[in-house]
Amino acid sequence: MIRILNAELEKLLAMRDPIILWEAMRYSVFAGGKRLRPQLLAGACLGLGGSIEEALPFACAVEMIHTYSLIHDDLPAMDDDDLRRGMPTSHKMFGQGMAILAGDGLLNLAYETMLAACGSMGDKMGRGVKAASILAKAAGSSGMVAGQSVDILSENKKIDERTLLYMHANKTSALISASLEAGGILAGCGASCAKSLKEAGEKLGLAFQIRDDLLDITETTENLGKPANSDLKSNKSTYVSLFGIERAKADYERLSLESEEALGGLDWKDGFLLGLARKMHKGVPQKAE
Amino acid sequence: MIRILNAELEKLLAMRDPIILWEAMRYSVFAGGKRLRPQLLAGACLGLGGSIEEALPFACAVEMIHTYSLIHDDLPAMDDDDLRRGMPTSHKMFGQGMAILAGDGLLNLAYETMLAACGSMGDKMGRGVKAASILAKAAGSSGMVAGQSVDILSENKKIDERTLLYMHANKTSALISASLEAGGILAGCGASCAKSLKEAGEKLGLAFQIRDDLLDITETTENLGKPANSDLKSNKSTYVSLFGIERAKADYERLSLESEEALGGLDWKDGFLLGLARKMHKGVPQKAE
Repeated sequence: MIRILNAELEKLLAMRDPIILWEAMRYSVFAGGKRLRPQLLAGACLGLGGSIEEALPFACAVEMIHTYSLIHDDLPAMDDDDLRRGMPTSHKMFGQGMAILAGDGLLNLAYETMLAACGSMGDKMGRGVKAASILAKAAGSSGMVAGQSVDILSENKKIDERTLLYMHANKTSALISASLEAGGILAGCGASCAKSLKEAGEKLGLAFQIRDDLLDITETTENLGKPANSDLKSNKSTYVSLFGIERAKADYERLSLESEEALGGLDWKDGFLLGLARKMHKGVPQKAE
Repeated sequence: MIRILNAELEKLLAMRDPIILWEAMRYSVFAGGKRLRPQLLAGACLGLGGSIEEALPFACAVEMIHTYSLIHDDLPAMDDDDLRRGMPTSHKMFGQGMAILAGDGLLNLAYETMLAACGSMGDKMGRGVKAASILAKAAGSSGMVAGQSVDILSENKKIDERTLLYMHANKTSALISASLEAGGILAGCGASCAKSLKEAGEKLGLAFQIRDDLLDITETTENLGKPANSDLKSNKSTYVSLFGIERAKADYERLSLESEEALGGLDWKDGFLLGLARKMHKGVPQKAE
């Protein structure tokens, strides 16, 4: 699956002019991301009866949206990170102006890619438009952009539990949940199936974030590694610092279980998606306390 | 027309949480822009037999795309402008981080708006998807983002004529041309009509930019005012500084005439679009030399 995704991303991001812009876009897309969100989208689509051809453009788009958000989040005016996955961040490599443009370019390309796909879907065009709408909502100012704006407003402040949950829901869960739902929609799943995917995704996303916060504390970040969008810093509030390690572990277990139950109730044609969801939960220390 | 556009933008940008993000998005959208691109889109659509209802979401989207590009172009890492249309730029009002996010929010909202519109277009959905595709291509890394990246790479350098034409084509003409073409597509115009709109828009856009450069020199910026996306600075090469004032004037006259001829050959149901194109040409000094 990852090989197919990377090959398609290579095609969509084939080098062209202006060289430095496309180099910057490629640099971040091929910087070792685990392709989690596109796998969730494609896995949901295939597992529910859709085809890889239908899923691929949308899966690549979701990875571009994710990558654009990382590039912009890392900027000095935001989280000011010099490293991402052990490599210099985009603005460290290409300068701030080009990093902003690389992000803008990827975001636009994500929509260009989805719209082009919609245009050749024939009588399934409605599914494509719906899937793209769901991803747009998750990416935008009622989703990831909203979450990040609350994040930068909370910088160096003590935040309350509600604010942390809002940030996690919008920065992390929104796109994970939208990936699952969009995959289902592309496969033609009905409203109740789409709702299950959405809700499972929200829980999966929050569990994934809590796992990150727990791993951060216990420093056992081998296994699957930290979520790619981790921007937790020592001066930032985390699920663990606000709710305590016991509550974090209990919530994590509950959310993981609930998301697996919600996904398990659907009519899967293969085991890929459930396996992937389970893999996302691996690596949490059994005795974190 | 402008009143209808503003009313629709008000609806799409109705205040919501997070307050500061939406305030920043609204600030730039309602900062006195002349709504040129959305008028071109809606004017082309209506004049070729489409309805205002069909045009509005796409017209608003094109204004959001234009505004996002202004916010990001003004950033310190790009053109570093403190003022835009006599008012503090977004990052001066809200800080750099929030300005980047306001731009990101507007860009996403543009696509959200177009995709939502496509979703309710029934058997005309294909037109909506095509129109959105055209705008996405013009906005992205083969259009405006490409133009801006060449622009920041050319900062404080002497550029050649080819580079200036590339920048003008991508930064200014691309979205103007796409607005006209998308409007026609939404009205259901055929391939040859769409081609005429596209080519007329490219010429109209370049003429508009040369007019800006001419007005910049002669400082007669009353009349229609300078194009909203003017970011010319004294240390930047312009059409006039590279080609000379005589050649600039001659090219301007020729392009204006050619664009009007191309538009004049189409089967318009009203005179709005041709009137608007003519207004875009007003204000160039007759004796600039």
